[in-house]
Amino acid sequence: MPYTLILLRHGNSLWNQQNLFTGWVDVRLSEQGITEAKRAGELIAESGLTPDVVHTSVLTRAIQTADLALEQADRLWIPVERSWRLNERHYGALQGLNKADTLEKYGPEQFQLWRRSFDVPPPPLPDDSKWSQAGDPRYADLGDLLPRTECLKDVIERMLPYWESEISSDLRAGKQVLVTAHGNSLRALVKHLDQISDEDIAELNIPTGIPLVYELGEDLMPTAPGRYLDPEAAAAGAAAVAAQGAKK
Amino acid sequence: MPYTLILLRHGNSLWNQQNLFTGWVDVRLSEQGITEAKRAGELIAESGLTPDVVHTSVLTRAIQTADLALEQADRLWIPVERSWRLNERHYGALQGLNKADTLEKYGPEQFQLWRRSFDVPPPPLPDDSKWSQAGDPRYADLGDLLPRTECLKDVIERMLPYWESEISSDLRAGKQVLVTAHGNSLRALVKHLDQISDEDIAELNIPTGIPLVYELGEDLMPTAPGRYLDPEAAAAGAAAVAAQGAKK
Repeated sequence: MPYTLILLRHGNSLWNQQNLFTGWVDVRLSEQGITEAKRAGELIAESGLTPDVVHTSVLTRAIQTADLALEQADRLWIPVERSWRLNERHYGALQGLNKADTLEKYGPEQFQLWRRSFDVPPPPLPDDSKWSQAGDPRYADLGDLLPRTECLKDVIERMLPYWESEISSDLRAGKQVLVTAHGNSLRALVKHLDQISDEDIAELNIPTGIPLVYELGEDLMPTAPGRYLDPEAAAAGAAAVAAQGAKK
Repeated sequence: MPYTLILLRHGNSLWNQQNLFTGWVDVRLSEQGITEAKRAGELIAESGLTPDVVHTSVLTRAIQTADLALEQADRLWIPVERSWRLNERHYGALQGLNKADTLEKYGPEQFQLWRRSFDVPPPPLPDDSKWSQAGDPRYADLGDLLPRTECLKDVIERMLPYWESEISSDLRAGKQVLVTAHGNSLRALVKHLDQISDEDIAELNIPTGIPLVYELGEDLMPTAPGRYLDPEAAAAGAAAVAAQGAKK
């Protein structure tokens, strides 16, 4: 029996609009992001998918996306699980900075290293920064696990245990699982599923707001390539993500 | 240590607007209901309350209310539990009927008996009715527990086990608990908390969209009367609920 997994990256946020590094800063969806989330729900409904449970990060923009999509698909009543392990990559001292300013100040090499290197995190964010999550009640139980910066490798290390325990057990119970999360937590999951190398993952961009569906076998690995429910929009969206940093 | 419980009845729905008996029919909030839910979130935030977990029914209007209120209170990230045991009373064959038409057709005595008697349910709703929940996937696991009609006594019998297991264990863990539900599932809970007699409960009306806060002792019973976060609006709202059926 095949298992069905639906991945959904949240839509455009207020800080995406301003071209700021966001990371764990808890910004809301923009109007465009709200429209994207509703469209994602329509795509899920039109394709005949019926998610039985949704897993989200603890960041508002991913939760809004899940709620808007599920309301559109008439599945707002399904059980919900949330975890910080599905959060966006913590962008360290870059959180709150303009991407174009950062590119200009540090040059394209350093910029691309911070954005896309596998194992080089940005400098840590000081706890007294206005963009710090130290003291945020939703992370009160994390203790030393609370990151001050992360590279993609760090995201994989904290995301995979959640995949292996919570998401996998729902899948094995025969449930269609929707995961609503972020560019880098989903890149981490897709890297695992598609067994993408540490080098090649730099080139993978996941578009916002378009459900990505995997059929998985008994070993919870894909039996076929993942498919976007709107392939044309997905290709355009991935190109737009890749071009980030250019605009100001 | 006192425990804090916040009860919130969902705001005006599309069928409230049309003065129809709703019960388990899964209608959405009206624009007015959306405004009420946001206002409830503001009241929660302004009062300094910080719910740690939310319990909702599996009906969309209660879930929308929880999501809108929590987003307004910046607590959209808290854990969520849902249960059919918090659903509105199943209104049986009255579901989908106009309240004023029903009053006119059956007379004030029968009407008030169906609306407010403790143990007389309306006639059961046939499974082939367009307003039936037989076949709704969210109730697929219920089997013989799926009601076709309910009186308030029935609601108490299916709600209290959820209070005693799920909600109580969150309270005993020291969590502030928000319960977002319906007129009759909340009347059932308030009847238990305030030890209201089977006769007197007929007179209790819970207004929509105004958080009702209880401080509970070690025995999870109130140490003081519940207080509405906006007492004036609550009094006006309760009077409006009591007057239902008159308008057309």
